[in-house]
Amino acid sequence: MRGYYADKDDVLARLRRIEGQVRGLQKMVESDAYCIDILTQITAASNALKKVAVGLLDDHIRHCVMQGAEEGKDMVREATEAIERLVKA
Amino acid sequence: MRGYYADKDDVLARLRRIEGQVRGLQKMVESDAYCIDILTQITAASNALKKVAVGLLDDHIRHCVMQGAEEGKDMVREATEAIERLVKA
Amino acid sequence: MRGYYADKDDVLARLRRIEGQVRGLQKMVESDAYCIDILTQITAASNALKKVAVGLLDDHIRHCVMQGAEEGKDMVREATEAIERLVKA
Amino acid sequence: MRGYYADKDDVLARLRRIEGQVRGLQKMVESDAYCIDILTQITAASNALKKVAVGLLDDHIRHCVMQGAEEGKDMVREATEAIERLVKA
Repeated sequence: MRGYYADKDDVLARLRRIEGQVRGLQKMVESDAYCIDILTQITAASNALKKVAVGLLDDHIRHCVMQGAEEGKDMVREATEAIERLVKA
Repeated sequence: MRGYYADKDDVLARLRRIEGQVRGLQKMVESDAYCIDILTQITAASNALKKVAVGLLDDHIRHCVMQGAEEGKDMVREATEAIERLVKA
Repeated sequence: MRGYYADKDDVLARLRRIEGQVRGLQKMVESDAYCIDILTQITAASNALKKVAVGLLDDHIRHCVMQGAEEGKDMVREATEAIERLVKA
Repeated sequence: MRGYYADKDDVLARLRRIEGQVRGLQKMVESDAYCIDILTQITAASNALKKVAVGLLDDHIRHCVMQGAEEGKDMVREATEAIERLVKA
């Protein structure tokens, strides 16, 4: 069982909203919207993606990493490396 | 004429690829993919969005801001504020 | 006992190096260094700070959060909120 | 003349404050402060560094890049590359 199982519908709803934002961005470019407005939308989509990521991380630490520790598996390094990539994204 | 006009097809192709990444993320969540793999994909999509943003900024400074300056309009502050939001996204 | 106790000397050495980078930045500004070179140095200092943060997070999850869980304390939310602030920094 | 010349005192004051924050971080680690409090301070220092960077960028675009354009030099690419590194820092 994945850690994000409980919030699966919420995660999916967020991702569908982000997909809509990215499609909206294409429409903005197609209709020659103003650069700064497009940048604002990109920032919003990127923030929304990061929010999903932080939520998944919370679940992952709470469930997978904890359970791993009980079973003697170290899953912290892997999680921290994902955090590091995210911090630089 | 917008600054990104010349690269419009390239920008649209990138955004369509990002839309595909976000749809792929939904499939990953639906099929209970491993959290860390989902996080890696989110990082990739966020990086791709930022890359589009930086490209738009380049065009915007090169065309709109420069042309604005010639016409006595200061468009630098607006561009810098967009950069600041992006840096924090 | 703090989670970062084992690496304390390493963390301190990194922070002293970052302090040196920030002092170097002041010298660059005082001597009218080129803006782009200053920006490159700021990026390096910020990256070094984030690297310290990710290392502390690794230790924190590994020790404090795990130990908290054993004692029935939920310290995940607090850690995730720190990650969220860091991701946006 | 550098673009940030006018704000030089302000930039220096900010950098000295950041140097103080980084020294404060060393004291926190030396006195075994709580990980999350240290992370909060790192986030603050990183945010302050980025704020200096965005200010320098504003001046740089406003002065150097504009003046470069008048002299037929393209300095936009160089500025955008600095922005890209900053966005990922």
